[in-house]
Amino acid sequence: MKAEIIAIGTEILLGEIIDTNSAHIAQQLPELGIDLNYKTVVGDNMGRISETFRRAWDRSDLIIMTGGLGPTEDDMTREGICALLGEEPVVDPMLEKRLRAFFEGRGYVMPPSNIKQAWLIPSGRALDNPRGTAPGWWVERDGRIIVAMPGVPPEMERMWANEVRPELERRSDGEVLVTRTVKTVGIGEGSVDEMAKHLYGTPGIGIGTYARADGVHLRIGAKGRSREEAWERIRPVEEELRSIFGSAIWGYDDETFEGYIADQMHERGQTLAVMESCTGGLLSSTLTDVPGSTQYFTAGLVTYHAQQKIDAGVPVEVIEEFGVISQETAKAMAQAVRERYRTDYGIGVTGVAGPDPADGVAPGTVHVAVATPEGGVHALSMTMNTGRAAVKRRAVTTSLLLLRRALLGEAR
Amino acid sequence: MKAEIIAIGTEILLGEIIDTNSAHIAQQLPELGIDLNYKTVVGDNMGRISETFRRAWDRSDLIIMTGGLGPTEDDMTREGICALLGEEPVVDPMLEKRLRAFFEGRGYVMPPSNIKQAWLIPSGRALDNPRGTAPGWWVERDGRIIVAMPGVPPEMERMWANEVRPELERRSDGEVLVTRTVKTVGIGEGSVDEMAKHLYGTPGIGIGTYARADGVHLRIGAKGRSREEAWERIRPVEEELRSIFGSAIWGYDDETFEGYIADQMHERGQTLAVMESCTGGLLSSTLTDVPGSTQYFTAGLVTYHAQQKIDAGVPVEVIEEFGVISQETAKAMAQAVRERYRTDYGIGVTGVAGPDPADGVAPGTVHVAVATPEGGVHALSMTMNTGRAAVKRRAVTTSLLLLRRALLGEAR
Repeated sequence: MKAEIIAIGTEILLGEIIDTNSAHIAQQLPELGIDLNYKTVVGDNMGRISETFRRAWDRSDLIIMTGGLGPTEDDMTREGICALLGEEPVVDPMLEKRLRAFFEGRGYVMPPSNIKQAWLIPSGRALDNPRGTAPGWWVERDGRIIVAMPGVPPEMERMWANEVRPELERRSDGEVLVTRTVKTVGIGEGSVDEMAKHLYGTPGIGIGTYARADGVHLRIGAKGRSREEAWERIRPVEEELRSIFGSAIWGYDDETFEGYIADQMHERGQTLAVMESCTGGLLSSTLTDVPGSTQYFTAGLVTYHAQQKIDAGVPVEVIEEFGVISQETAKAMAQAVRERYRTDYGIGVTGVAGPDPADGVAPGTVHVAVATPEGGVHALSMTMNTGRAAVKRRAVTTSLLLLRRALLGEAR
Repeated sequence: MKAEIIAIGTEILLGEIIDTNSAHIAQQLPELGIDLNYKTVVGDNMGRISETFRRAWDRSDLIIMTGGLGPTEDDMTREGICALLGEEPVVDPMLEKRLRAFFEGRGYVMPPSNIKQAWLIPSGRALDNPRGTAPGWWVERDGRIIVAMPGVPPEMERMWANEVRPELERRSDGEVLVTRTVKTVGIGEGSVDEMAKHLYGTPGIGIGTYARADGVHLRIGAKGRSREEAWERIRPVEEELRSIFGSAIWGYDDETFEGYIADQMHERGQTLAVMESCTGGLLSSTLTDVPGSTQYFTAGLVTYHAQQKIDAGVPVEVIEEFGVISQETAKAMAQAVRERYRTDYGIGVTGVAGPDPADGVAPGTVHVAVATPEGGVHALSMTMNTGRAAVKRRAVTTSLLLLRRALLGEAR
């Protein structure tokens, strides 16, 4: 099935709203055995909407539209579909009833313009939208399918998951694609590539490597007549990758590094506290993005100034001898916070987020350290030239990598 | 000038990479008096690239392309342009020299496939790319312009700013659009709309209201033959909005709330410390996203557990009487952190980020408090049902709003 996606709306065209809907849908089409060929954004202009719909109708079996289902004159997706198919809309009594009930439930009178949200055409049926006033449309004619969904992401996502995706899954006759992502860390992309190369020729399998902030990902893709058939092709390759990369693999698919750390700490029943300077709270915030992190994350200190570090237990002599931005101070921060909160692990981060130097140290210089239950303390230093926000993010990722190494007993 | 944008690449089509380039360009075209009509994404497929280029050539004066300029077989933008125009590429000696120097400078031998990054066609000239190996192309024929830029955002953004935008600015003959965004807070969108309504009919001016996390924004847009002419239309409207909304206006254009707070604190020479629980460090991290925040942000405590709050100076009786998730505890946290770090202001945040209840309190319940130099302490409570990440973000925004009210002497 050849598909294309059309996003409708001047705000999206002009970049004032980022179109997350298209990516959300596009990522799932391969799993359904549907080939996506084009993605188009068109503004609220009837002539250009008509041209775009006509072109899509000529070249695609499935046209997925988002946006333009609101009640105003600027919302022209329904009108565009009517014009394309030469069909007249009628007000559907059931939809009208539901629409009026929606407004009454909120104590409002329905504005007359909203009535078009109760339209239907002979070739179409409505798609339920419990999160808003605009039902979607499922239109079928001449062997083609048009799906029109609202542009508001939570409304679109629910409609896609509950109404559209299951129906497409039933009808798809193509081979489905299943992917499995294996996430490694601590090995460069070139070496990962070299180590996995002999698997690239495996019949029926595609393998790609991707360098990401949390390490190098290997993505295995396989097609099959069913998900089971595709999985059977993937499984032996995944096994092989596991035996090649061993403990360098930290997770799979959409697992995050902070989620991995949380799982490890829960499993071991251990605890963590952090003292951070240049990351300004982002390390604590990232760790606590994981639900239930309260069980292992004991406390965080954002000690932006040297005096606060000293008050929190960093020896003044360390700061005087090595400077506040040094590996030694990072180590002292990790140890101090671990002792202060009597946790199993402590992390210390000090550096210069930028854009200006601090204490004579260049922006982008960061030192991270992890103190362990065995009394050891491990450290890493780095220099980047990527801007304040990126330095903060990268320093957080590096701290978590170092903590992982310590958990595995691999830290130097 | 009628323009369209084409993004080329299967990874973008399939939603594996989010296309930020198109929005970056699209946002700037109105300022240049260029009308953007379409945005298309097409995968690495020669047939579909050709079809897309042909269509664009038939309907647009300016075609802006990003991506597909790499050295591999999958990179087909140059080939697509050659096919469209029926022109043969030749290796440009100057470009080849620069390309080989790039590899030599890094101690590599240039792979043979890279030579196509030194191609030129008779109708085209190269656009400099100091950040990578792929020069862009500026192609002009039959009264139309094609601009091809690399897909890597930092490379694209530099080329756009230094090479493409200035040239388009020189040639544009359309009216330029200038916009000014006035940011208010503390007044609902309906009321803002009502208060500004009488200005909507101002000739030559467009006004829109937008509800955002940091309040309601009013955007004034005006066209003119020059930027000066457009600004002359905007200025009196902005003046009028200032007199209507007074201190409800906190900023303009791309100013952020944390930037506003930083400016205020710098101006007053005052300091701030925070104690946060359910936001887990995000409040500190947001405040320290602003360069130079080290001057006023003294310290942050992430006290996830009741015991840590008590250790940091929150009276145990308050927690016992009102519970750890209560307005009273938030107030005690704000006061304790202010006293502990001897700052002018203190913020306390306690609540349940979710997804599960805590201490019998529903997820999404948040209490924030601000302690002031006058000894007062102001608090706000809220309940949301929007998921862990959104609860954290919203709690941070609310804390900053409350701090602003305190700074203005408007907090209750």
